[in-house]
Amino acid sequence: MPLRLDSADRDFEARFSDLLAGKRESSRDVSDAVAAIIADVRSRGDAAVAELTNRYDKAGVTADTLRLDAREIGAAARQVPDNVRAALQVAHDRIRAHHEKQKPQDHVYTDALGVTLGTRWTPVDAVGIYVPGGLASYPSSVLMNAVPAHVAGVSRIAMVVPTPNGEINPAILAAAEIAGITEIYRIGGAQAVAALAYGTASIARVDKVVGPGNAYVATAKRQVFGQVGIDMIAGPSEVLVIADGSANPAWVAADLIAQAEHGAGAQSILVTTDSRLAGAVATEMERQLALLPKQALAREGWEEFGAIITVASLDQAADLANRIASEHVELALDDPQALLPAIRHAGAIFLGHHTPEAIGDYVGGSNHVLPTARSARFASGLGVLDFMKRTSLLGCTPSALSALAEPAVTIAGVEDLDGHGRSISIRLNT
Amino acid sequence: MPLRLDSADRDFEARFSDLLAGKRESSRDVSDAVAAIIADVRSRGDAAVAELTNRYDKAGVTADTLRLDAREIGAAARQVPDNVRAALQVAHDRIRAHHEKQKPQDHVYTDALGVTLGTRWTPVDAVGIYVPGGLASYPSSVLMNAVPAHVAGVSRIAMVVPTPNGEINPAILAAAEIAGITEIYRIGGAQAVAALAYGTASIARVDKVVGPGNAYVATAKRQVFGQVGIDMIAGPSEVLVIADGSANPAWVAADLIAQAEHGAGAQSILVTTDSRLAGAVATEMERQLALLPKQALAREGWEEFGAIITVASLDQAADLANRIASEHVELALDDPQALLPAIRHAGAIFLGHHTPEAIGDYVGGSNHVLPTARSARFASGLGVLDFMKRTSLLGCTPSALSALAEPAVTIAGVEDLDGHGRSISIRLNT
Repeated sequence: MPLRLDSADRDFEARFSDLLAGKRESSRDVSDAVAAIIADVRSRGDAAVAELTNRYDKAGVTADTLRLDAREIGAAARQVPDNVRAALQVAHDRIRAHHEKQKPQDHVYTDALGVTLGTRWTPVDAVGIYVPGGLASYPSSVLMNAVPAHVAGVSRIAMVVPTPNGEINPAILAAAEIAGITEIYRIGGAQAVAALAYGTASIARVDKVVGPGNAYVATAKRQVFGQVGIDMIAGPSEVLVIADGSANPAWVAADLIAQAEHGAGAQSILVTTDSRLAGAVATEMERQLALLPKQALAREGWEEFGAIITVASLDQAADLANRIASEHVELALDDPQALLPAIRHAGAIFLGHHTPEAIGDYVGGSNHVLPTARSARFASGLGVLDFMKRTSLLGCTPSALSALAEPAVTIAGVEDLDGHGRSISIRLNT
Repeated sequence: MPLRLDSADRDFEARFSDLLAGKRESSRDVSDAVAAIIADVRSRGDAAVAELTNRYDKAGVTADTLRLDAREIGAAARQVPDNVRAALQVAHDRIRAHHEKQKPQDHVYTDALGVTLGTRWTPVDAVGIYVPGGLASYPSSVLMNAVPAHVAGVSRIAMVVPTPNGEINPAILAAAEIAGITEIYRIGGAQAVAALAYGTASIARVDKVVGPGNAYVATAKRQVFGQVGIDMIAGPSEVLVIADGSANPAWVAADLIAQAEHGAGAQSILVTTDSRLAGAVATEMERQLALLPKQALAREGWEEFGAIITVASLDQAADLANRIASEHVELALDDPQALLPAIRHAGAIFLGHHTPEAIGDYVGGSNHVLPTARSARFASGLGVLDFMKRTSLLGCTPSALSALAEPAVTIAGVEDLDGHGRSISIRLNT
């Protein structure tokens, strides 16, 4: 049974804290194994990558066949039905249109002293996109990672995707084709992350690695961070639905099930001001789970990690939402705008009864790569800014330098950095 | 002797690549020791923090005296001479004025289909600032970390600073006072990072940890990443000066020395189109190093890691600059604006002959926390955006949902996520 809480219960605070602290994934410590794999790839390059790929993925590759050729990509992509290709194209175009609006503006100005100050944005040169193989191999994720990079102006995108037993999901390659990705390697795991970060004879190193993966991939990203940039350490997906009496219990239940069916620790939570809705959603969950072709995963996730929480007010719902800092927050309310300012920590917020979270997974246009495991407290979803970086600009006129010299030299003195002070004062005596 | 390279030399490419690949810090692997410290702090809280602080810092603290009280802070800050306080106030005010201009705008719009899309920025709630003790204990860094957090709207800033043998730099506390920081703990190392990330009875956990530190601090930040946000893994500082015949060799030398005096792997590189300038700067380095009160560190850094590179053109200089991706780039040219667009990877760019890098360290207004070790390829200097996060907003009208349903349900099908498709289709049949 999913957890049922009521904020009026005497032990509510303790039980809610337990819910917050609950771990939803087994965090295997694979750091030593990953460190060894990275060291091996750094020292032996392609040979190590091929060997590890054959060991873990049974992929039957050699150093010469790590990269998919254009013919293979085209042939696989053509296996995808036309309606799927068309749907991916719609998704691509909408994601692209929205992300175009995220492009940042440079800002340079001169202050009253004559100091020019500014921020200039430039794209990262080369990005590696990790695409999982197996269960969570999603063509939509290829678009969500590649499109913002393209919009940012990244000139090279290298994609890696493991092919267990030599098999690859054709829809992944169709999505890559639509996104304009032509550099694709049939590798995965820590060895793929190491190859992207450090480069091999056949795989040029990139500057940033993005995309989700298993414990080996996550640990490898953590270890190569600094050598390259990384996006985030992705955890199990989660949704928080905030609903009042205006919500349709069948729709709310459908959204909770959509999250739970990810399995692997995915969490669905309903917070509602309406105890009748709470009961009706619980009933709907049973009814709809029974209709789902593959119900086991969703049922297991709902029963193990799901929760229905009844609260006294929408303000209280917002407080809980901020403590949960969920990846996805749905406002199943007639007037979602009224509560919006109160929700401060969330990866994405879905407004009103007609915005199921799943629409944002595919074709809404916003990005579905979002901070999980309460990291929305400090992290953001993937976007164009993640594929760019800021350079600050500073320029002094002679008079501006003179005006600023005294405090600068004074601070240099207290920091025991005489050379810093001298680099300023030497310019004043000429 | 520093390295001397000429792009016309036959072996230039190989020697330049060696320079790029050269390691400037000993990367001690302290990950097991750090993991043990973090586990200890998580299980024993304040008692572990106090014990480790006394062991490593000989600080003589108890769990009850980890935090500095207001009287101590005030008394120490009052030891700082008035002119230093005034200089720090100038720095604070200029940093604040510039960072105010970095505040991002929310952007929400409705597209032709009736889909509302948007990006909303909110501040991180609580931030921990790590301030090193000992040699590299800089009051300016307190300002550079605290001011952008305040401007972002962070409501709680907790500062940690180790006090070896119980001693603290009064200027650090004066800077904290000017920056409005009142929550200060006399702790450092991995134990301080662990306390900030996980919290103890006396130290509430934060959402993000920023600031530089030694190998233990850097490794601890890497390990707690995900539990909290972190800024970056800071490496040795570096400057690249691009100069032509218009540059003053004495000024260029002073700037190279200012960087080298940081020691600890700091690197100064001159790239010039003018071989006479190259020679004159080399001569000036000797002359000015001899005048520096504490010349040993700067001389050692210059001789071990410094380089003077002669190139055929400013375009070539820009190419090398992009490969080096330096923390600081000075354009010691009469017309720095002409070369500016060609420099794509740099933490900060200093424009023209009257902008020594040191002015940016203190009072220019831009931030001096910048990406090192070639990470300007993918990372940015610290700014207001680092203390905020984006939430994406998505809202569909009933007709927008209808228009998008078919492609969304199609992609859900190919991803084998029936529940996702049902959460959309269930809304269409009512």
